[in-house]
This record gives sequence, structure tokens and C-alpha cells, in this order.
Amino acid sequence: MDALPEKKNADAVPQRPTRRNFLGKSALLGLTGAGLTLGLAGCKDDGAAKGAAASASAKAAGAPQAAGHEVAPGQLDEYYHFTSGGHSGEARILGLPSGRTLRRIPVFNIDPMVGWGLTNESKAIIGTKPDGSLKYTTGDTHHIHGSYKDGTYDGRWLFVNDKIHARLARIRMDTMECDKIVEIPNIQGFHGIFPDKCDPVDAKVNYTTRVFCGAEFHIPLPNDGRDLNDPSKWGCLFSCVDAATMEVRWQCRVDGNMDLIATSYDGKLAASNQYNTENAFDLAGMMASERDACVFFNVGRIEQMIKDGKFTTIGSSKVPVVDGRKAANADPKTALTCYVPVSKNPHGVNASPDGKYFVCSGKLSPTATVIDLSLVHKWFAGELKDERASVVAEPEIGLGPLHTGFDGKGNAYTSLFLDSQIVKWNVDKAIAQFKGDKAAKVVLDRLDVHYQPGHTYCSMGETKEADGKYFNSGNKFSKDRFLPVGPLHPETEQLIVISGEKMVMIADHTAYPEPHDGIIVRRDIVKTRQIYNMDDFPNAVKTPADSRVERKGNKVSIFLMSQAPSYSMPVIKVKKGDEVTLTLTNHDKVEDLTHGCAIPTYNVNFIVNPQETKSVTFKADRAGAFWIYCTHFCHALHLEMRSRLLVEA
Amino acid sequence: MDALPEKKNADAVPQRPTRRNFLGKSALLGLTGAGLTLGLAGCKDDGAAKGAAASASAKAAGAPQAAGHEVAPGQLDEYYHFTSGGHSGEARILGLPSGRTLRRIPVFNIDPMVGWGLTNESKAIIGTKPDGSLKYTTGDTHHIHGSYKDGTYDGRWLFVNDKIHARLARIRMDTMECDKIVEIPNIQGFHGIFPDKCDPVDAKVNYTTRVFCGAEFHIPLPNDGRDLNDPSKWGCLFSCVDAATMEVRWQCRVDGNMDLIATSYDGKLAASNQYNTENAFDLAGMMASERDACVFFNVGRIEQMIKDGKFTTIGSSKVPVVDGRKAANADPKTALTCYVPVSKNPHGVNASPDGKYFVCSGKLSPTATVIDLSLVHKWFAGELKDERASVVAEPEIGLGPLHTGFDGKGNAYTSLFLDSQIVKWNVDKAIAQFKGDKAAKVVLDRLDVHYQPGHTYCSMGETKEADGKYFNSGNKFSKDRFLPVGPLHPETEQLIVISGEKMVMIADHTAYPEPHDGIIVRRDIVKTRQIYNMDDFPNAVKTPADSRVERKGNKVSIFLMSQAPSYSMPVIKVKKGDEVTLTLTNHDKVEDLTHGCAIPTYNVNFIVNPQETKSVTFKADRAGAFWIYCTHFCHALHLEMRSRLLVEA
Repeated sequence: MDALPEKKNADAVPQRPTRRNFLGKSALLGLTGAGLTLGLAGCKDDGAAKGAAASASAKAAGAPQAAGHEVAPGQLDEYYHFTSGGHSGEARILGLPSGRTLRRIPVFNIDPMVGWGLTNESKAIIGTKPDGSLKYTTGDTHHIHGSYKDGTYDGRWLFVNDKIHARLARIRMDTMECDKIVEIPNIQGFHGIFPDKCDPVDAKVNYTTRVFCGAEFHIPLPNDGRDLNDPSKWGCLFSCVDAATMEVRWQCRVDGNMDLIATSYDGKLAASNQYNTENAFDLAGMMASERDACVFFNVGRIEQMIKDGKFTTIGSSKVPVVDGRKAANADPKTALTCYVPVSKNPHGVNASPDGKYFVCSGKLSPTATVIDLSLVHKWFAGELKDERASVVAEPEIGLGPLHTGFDGKGNAYTSLFLDSQIVKWNVDKAIAQFKGDKAAKVVLDRLDVHYQPGHTYCSMGETKEADGKYFNSGNKFSKDRFLPVGPLHPETEQLIVISGEKMVMIADHTAYPEPHDGIIVRRDIVKTRQIYNMDDFPNAVKTPADSRVERKGNKVSIFLMSQAPSYSMPVIKVKKGDEVTLTLTNHDKVEDLTHGCAIPTYNVNFIVNPQETKSVTFKADRAGAFWIYCTHFCHALHLEMRSRLLVEA
Repeated sequence: MDALPEKKNADAVPQRPTRRNFLGKSALLGLTGAGLTLGLAGCKDDGAAKGAAASASAKAAGAPQAAGHEVAPGQLDEYYHFTSGGHSGEARILGLPSGRTLRRIPVFNIDPMVGWGLTNESKAIIGTKPDGSLKYTTGDTHHIHGSYKDGTYDGRWLFVNDKIHARLARIRMDTMECDKIVEIPNIQGFHGIFPDKCDPVDAKVNYTTRVFCGAEFHIPLPNDGRDLNDPSKWGCLFSCVDAATMEVRWQCRVDGNMDLIATSYDGKLAASNQYNTENAFDLAGMMASERDACVFFNVGRIEQMIKDGKFTTIGSSKVPVVDGRKAANADPKTALTCYVPVSKNPHGVNASPDGKYFVCSGKLSPTATVIDLSLVHKWFAGELKDERASVVAEPEIGLGPLHTGFDGKGNAYTSLFLDSQIVKWNVDKAIAQFKGDKAAKVVLDRLDVHYQPGHTYCSMGETKEADGKYFNSGNKFSKDRFLPVGPLHPETEQLIVISGEKMVMIADHTAYPEPHDGIIVRRDIVKTRQIYNMDDFPNAVKTPADSRVERKGNKVSIFLMSQAPSYSMPVIKVKKGDEVTLTLTNHDKVEDLTHGCAIPTYNVNFIVNPQETKSVTFKADRAGAFWIYCTHFCHALHLEMRSRLLVEA
């Protein structure tokens, strides 16, 4: 490939980069001054009218392309699309190709519909302060990935992380509910995750038992007020979480920072792209180096070292920590880590479904970097001259490359943030070109997306069953693509058919900010439960005889049942000042016959699905009559489904 | 019409109705035992596979119908669809016919994406306890309606209510943000709202200045612990809120309860359907009467009485209350209220766009009741023999009628909850039939919906500009219509084209529970702002010189600016124990160039749109380094947009 774009060193104002000091001349088309040229004039106050004119021509161009991909009334989607919801704190399930939102899964946010963050059960999962209030009510869900077996999704778990408060959450896929959240110690800016696909030592454990976690921000270690003014002492840790127990197994300190994560199909390697190998603390510094890195972790060696007791801990954390910095890993034959130089400020690393390559994007270089995993293994064996020799291709593909998906037919699809395009390119051709074949046609197609694409991925593309059917482009700006709804526009998930030679865009789906990352899963893989098992809830109110009010001092327990269209007790009496715990079991067995339970003034609402039990606790600090009522439509007499809570003065 | 369905009196187990005691024989088809027959077997564990087979035939039937209504990539929707989000606590904006969610509007819920419930500004709107924490984090948005001018939407405000905590919220339609919330005193079960369309006295004020509010639940007045065991003393109030100030103007006590609200185009009448004229406190009692009522309020008379000082107040509330109970309003010529008997347990009252009629559904009667407003005026003038004489039609239309929309061509479309159908019927033919014309063909068409429809409405159907193009059926159960996503299914919003003689279903859109009610508004009516005016924020940080840290004792104020890709101060120092207020002004002017602001550990996240200012306050109770970072993708160097908050021990 050609030389990387020319750049000057970081001599500009620290917090305000000039155009020239982070991108070469050829990369400037998409930028103006300090802001971005966003491609098109947006809808102003008269946006609807203007847009209508614009859309007439779009209709002519767009409508025929979508033909054959509509999901008619009564028809089911072909794929599940699981996405992280960014700083909405939730995860989402969409159907594809329709783009319909099938469910929101509250994780780090509060959801009064289901009662997430309000019931005792969900509060225990999210975590509380000593006073019983929630520790956090914000979250920034970044990456969502499914658990694997034999190189493809097993439909058991989804994992999703919170960048703000360094938490990893697990969602069980039978009920599509979050069942565990762990806060990872001594990291900040928890960006990327990826489950492993195999044990590094025992090849029979060919399924997910670990989740690897990257962290972006350097912080004091421990972060207790020390070293505040000496960032050179700050550090970044790579973390391994046990998928079954959701406990942090170990951490590995690195040079530079980490962003996204990829894992190898053989289970032996995990990797993270690094956009700040400079260990810098301001913008100019983070862009200073010509190349950054993709850091590989030798999982087997790290775990052996920990087994051998060769680790430290940080602060009050009991998690074993090993040193993966370069200075401590000079000999490849014993190294825990391998830093492969890649193009400047990469944002993304993805594993090809054939198991051979990891591809890093350049972001501030118009290139993608292809790393051959067999050569990384060779480096760890001491048989490769240097880390960079594991790079087998670095094609020039366009401006602002971020994330790459794969179709299982040897082609890669990379989002170009600055070009607002998706570029389709062939991995083998790129390797041939890198070897010197000047005739190799690497780039096969380009398609405009609208606008500024971020995460992008193919149907089943992160598994060995990549099927090359659909590609999703999660775009950060929608501008004129939808009716205006005030200063905050929706973002777009554009759906592209990739089964042919040319990419074909078939839909502009909207996304509530921020669609960060996602996976597209074949529908036969997902096996859900439609009814709970009452026995799964130790506090279930199982029989009419169990339906009662119990008092111990000023602690009152209400045991209630619901069955359409009524609760089991029409009148419930407590006294002002009581601490009341209400436990509700839904005795309906009809699928989807969910009931709600709201209590005015006392800030209570939650739902109980068929055969489910939940509880809430509140202080009855105001005397009066309060109607407990059903908030989830259940029956023709839903409105009449209510009981009286009488709080006696 | 024929006699109402036969029923027995409430002699059954109070909390468990038999099939027979609330519906006549003909109405039983949709019910089994205490539960509902939901029409179809749902998707079980192998739902996707089963559904796939089912959908093949649906495709053949459904696909051609949707032709011509697809919204291709780049094409804009024709209508805004504003919906209330039930116990999710939010409102939503969708585009039609695409069904795409263009925006969620947090109202009574917490939304970490925008920072709703987290910023000082939003907390002031939602309301806080003395300790500064939010008073409520739950809500049950029920009805959403737009402000009117000249009998149609003026695009100024949306109003939406919270049933749980008796609150009314206002959304300004230029920014699509909630700007006011008022808690209404002495009511519970706040179900229906409707803005007025004209002043009752000054016809020149031909726009919305009031919002009328119905309450379902009887409670002690005041609700302070008195009369807990004597529900006969409990009462229900109809409330009038000032649309401009959002203060409660007055309340009117009624017999029975109230549910939904309708208002007349001349501004003189408001009405509410009453499903519990029995004033009962259990299910059987609420179904005891053969007929319930639609209560009409003479707005002019009520306001004159208040002007004359003839009112009382309840408890600590200063809101004037008048007595609208029957006993106090025996003489029609001075009556404030008129109770028109309608079919049993009505759930819905809707105004026809010609201004002539209000239609009440029966719910537990297979009929709709058409009330002629000119006859209600005649009753108030003492010129009608009794209230029931204002009923001009009561056609039998099907089982479980709930809500009625209008196409502006004389036809009504009513949801049939038990039949899972929409029935199209002609109002004039119904009147003719009621007068004795046995040949009148009242019912024109029926269409199955999936399943159990609740709120339903036509495009522009609640205005004089009803255009008869689209009809939305908000269904309470979706069952087998979508891929299974665990025990909680999505609900459906089915879109139906009504421009022809026959109704044609064109889409199954999903809805996150619970789609309660909505309006479909022509896109030219909505005029949004895309950029804020910095001067609208008194606390804006306007210049680099304003960007600073100020200390007063242990109260620290951080004044920060954002401009892609950086904040105005790279390092900010405070001390452990400080109460920190961070105010952030976004200086970017490019449309949609929004920034986020998250602070790890301190549970901070919010966004600032272009030229907007927001603030948060938190206690810096943990020493260490915390990276303030941008959570809303803004720029190629978004990841690098961060500053260090150093909390010194």
C-alpha cells in the first residue's frame, strides 16, 4: 500500500485540533474547521415541506429496491437484531428486515413499565447504596454480543457493557431479561467486550466461558486520590469476566489504552485496538503517533501465570492482575501480550468468520489493517521477526474507516465515517495487493449511507455461519432522512442487502440514540420461554391461603395474587409509618396475560408476567386511601381491576 | 335498537365475576372462564418455526395490500403519530405510514440518554422531595392530545397525563420536550384528558386555553386518612387546567366516576363517560347497573359560578370546587352537569368532526350511543324532557366496543375488544335506524385486528380536518404476530387504510407497552426548531472567559462549554466532599451536533443539543480521577473528547 497520510506533530492548541494535524490532505473532504460537514442541508423549520419534495425523487429511486423485503402484516421477520442502546442504558431487540422494535430490555436504565430499578429483585441486580437507593441510574451500553458454541451463537446469553460506570451485564435469552451485573474494579471508559468462543487449553470446552473487556481511560491505580497530577503513573487494564458466575477472573495491565475487542475461534487469542498508544491525556497527544496498535492477549499464558500465583492486586480489589506492558514482555516466547502496529487511531477490530484474520480500521488513516492470526501465534512462538510482520494487508479503502463486517464469502464491509459510505472489499485480493499484485482489485463496491456510519455488521457475520444476506449500518446522524422532531434527530439503522455483487439499501430504520453496536441472529437460534415457572420464584404467593397481610413491628408484608380481572384481596390495611413490602404473584397462565401493579403516591409500578413473582418495598408515610390498580391491559374488565390500600393515620 | 343484553345483578363472588354476570349471552364468544380467549395459539418455544409457516400464507395475503404505502429509503412519512406510552411513562413520535419511531419524549420516566430526571432543569419540572431527589420515577401516560385553533391542531402543545400520580404534562411542539408538569389535587386514577377548542363565552378565543381531566377512582375528600372505612363518602372530581399556566383552574364534583373526555367545537361542553355510576368499590358493584352515563359539563355555567364566588375548597388545596352531583343540579336551567344514560360500562367518548355528536361505547353492551349535542344544549335550556332524549342512535355494532374514530365522511370506526375487530358504521344511518328505518344499513365493514384492540383513531380524525386516510388500531395483545421475545410480547399498532369502501390493513407495527392513545397529525402542521437559542438559557456559559470553576465554601460551580471534539477545560479540580454543580453549554451550531456529558462513578449523563445549556449537581464524595466524556457521537474524534475531573482527597 501507499504511505500513510502525511501529518505534522502535535504542535497545535491542545484542545482544538487543526484539520491538518490529524488527517492527511486526502482525508479532509469530510471536515470543515473544527466541525463536520454533514453532507446535506437538513430540514429547517419548513423541513417537512422541503423534505417532501426531496422524498418524491427518493421514492422513485428507492421503492423498487426494497421490493421482496417487506414484512407484510402477519408475516414474521427472518432475523433477530440485538442492539445496544448507547446512553439510553438499555438493550433492544428488533426484527429484520422489518426494523420493528420487538422489545426493549432495560439494563442500566430505569424502566417504570416493567418496574426495572423499582422492584426489589431488579434493585438487587443493579446494586444499591447503603440506604437502599440505586447506586446508578445512568449507563452507556456500548457493545452487545451473544454467547457462542461451536463457533456460532448458542442462544443462551447476551452480554452488554456500560461505559460510564464500568459494568458488564448479562441477559438470559430465554426470558430476554438482565440477570447479572458486575462492576469491574480499577478501570474507566469500559468500551469493548467480546465473549470467548473456546477455552484456550481445553478444546472440548468449545463454548463461551469468558467475556473479555477493554478499557479506554487511563486512571490512577488504585483510583483513590493518589497520583492525580502525575498521569504518567496512570494505567489501563484488560479484564476477563467469568461468563457463568459473572465474577472478574483476572486483569492484565497494558501500555496504551483499549477500545474494541475481538476473540479467536480457537480461544487462544483476544485482541483490542488501541487508539492511544501515546498514553496521552489530551487530544493532540492522542493523535501524535503515526501508528497505534492492536494488542493481542495470550489467554493461556495469562491464566497459567495466575495459576502459578504470579500476580498482584490493586487497592481493595482481590482480582489478580498481571503485567502485560511491553517492558515486562520483551521475550515473545513468554510474552503475555503482542502489540501489532496498525494505522493511526484505529476504532474497531473484527474477526473474520474463517477464523484466520483480525481486521483493524484506521479511523485517521484511510486504511484497514489485516492481521494473520497464525503469524501472531508464530510471534508468540518466537518465530516471527517482529509484531508488524503479522500484518498481511493494509488496503486503502476510504476516509474514516471504523468497523468491518464479513459475509462469509471472503468479502469485508467497512464503515467509512468521513466518506459516509460502506465499502465492500475482498480480503484475499487485499493480501495479494500487499504482496505486490498491482492488478488485484481490492475494492468491489461503495454505497452511500446517511450519514456518518459507526458500527456496522453482517447477518451472522461474527460467527462461522456468516450468511452474507443483510448488512446493518448504524449511522450517527440522520439529518434530512426523517420528519423533523426538534433539535434532537433520531439516528438511523440502514439495512443493506449484500447477497448480490452490488450492495442494495432497502430501508432507513430509525434508532433512539444511540445505536452503538449489534448482532444479527438467525431466528431459529433463539428459543424463548413464554410463561414463567412459579417455582422459580422462592417468594411466590402460591395459594389463596398464602394471600395475606403479615406484620412484624412496623414492617408489613403484603402477599398478593393477580388473576384477571382482580387481585386476591380487595382491601388491604396498613398504618402510617409502616415499611411495606408487597409481593405479587401472577396466577394467570395464558400467554402474554401480564398484569401491572401501580400504587398512587407511593411511586410504585411494575408488571408480573404469567406465573411470575415480583416485590416492592416502600414507606407508607401518608395516610389515606390508595387504589392499587392494574396498569397492563389484561381483560375487558382491566379498568375495574383494583384494590384499596388503606393507610390509617 | 334491540334491548341491551340481559344480565343478572351482582350476586357473584365479589372479586371473581362469572361470565354471565357482566355480559349477555351474545357477548360471551370472546371470553372463557375468568380469562380471555385470545384468538390464536401463540408462539411457543418453537414459535419462530411455527410462525414462519403461518407467515407464508400471510405474506401471500398481506403483501399486495401494503403496496403503495411503503416508505422507501430517503422518503419522508406523511403523518406524525403522537402516542402515549402507558406505564413506560413516556410519549412517542412515530412517522406514518412507516411506523418508525422518530423520537421518545421522556415525561414521567427517567431517561439517562437526554438526562431527563438527572439534570437540575428536568428535576425542577418533574418535582423533587425536600432532599432533592425526585418525587416520582413512575408514570402511566394515558392520553395525548394536541392544542387546537379553529377546530384543528395548531402545532403548539401536546398534553399527556399520568394516571398513577394524577399529573398532567405539557410538551412544547417546537422542541418536542416536556416543559411543565402539574399534580392535580384530590383526584386518583386520572384517566382521560382533552383540550378545549374554544372559549365557552368568547367565541373569538377559538383556540385551546383549557385542558379537561377525568378521574376514575373515588377517594376520601381530602384524602388524609379520614373516611377510610366509609367509601360512601368518597368522591370524584372533574378538573380544568389552564393550558398556558398549567395551574388547576377549578374542579367539579360528580356522581359516579369519569374515564375519557371529549370537548365540543363550540367550547361550551365537555363530557366524560362513566363506567361506575354505581359509585361501587368492587367489581360486581361496578357492573350492577344496566346503564351508566356520559356526564356533560356546562363549562360557562361552572366558570360563572366560580366567578360569583360560589365554591368550596378541599383540604389544603386552594382550587375552587363546585358541586356537579345530581342532587345539586336538579333544575336543568341552572344545572352545571347533565348525566346522559348510555350503555353499560362505557369506555370511551369521542366527538364527531362535524361538531354534532359525541359517541360513547358500551364495552359491556354491544352498542355505541350517539348523543346529539344540540339536544344536550336543549336540555340545559330546560327544553328536553329528560337527559336520555339527547340520545339519537344506539346501533348494535359488535362485542366489547371501546373507542371510535371518524373519517370526516360521516363514518365511524369503533374498536371491538372482544371481537378483535374494527367495525365501520355510518352515523346518519344509525340515526335513521334509531328513528325506525329498518332498512338502514348501519354497519358497512368489519376487519379483524390482532388482537384485542383498545384505542383507535383516524388521521386528523379528532379535528374538523378529518381526512379519512389512515386508521390506527392500538392492540393490547400481539401473540403470534411477531418473533417471540420471551414472556412479554410487544403490543401492536396496526395501520389500516380507510380511504376506500373496505378497510385494508397495511402494516403490523410494534409498540412497547403500552400504546394507550394517540393522534395522527398532518406533517405540514408541525413546525419544529432545529437549533436552540443560547439566550433562552439564563445559565448559559457564553464565552471562553465564562468557562471557569468557582468556589463558595464547599459549593463548587463548574462552567463548561462543548465544541466538537472537546470541552473547554481539559482539567477540572475539586475537593472530596464538595457539592459540585456542572453547567454545560453546547457551542456547536451545526444541526444535530449534540454532545453528551458523562461522569463515571458520579451517575451523571445528559446531552446538550446545539446552543443548549443544562446543569447537574452531585456530591464529590469519592477521591480520584474521573474522565468527563462525550456520550453522544459528535465527530471523528468523539472518542477523544474528554476532560479530567480530579477529586482531591
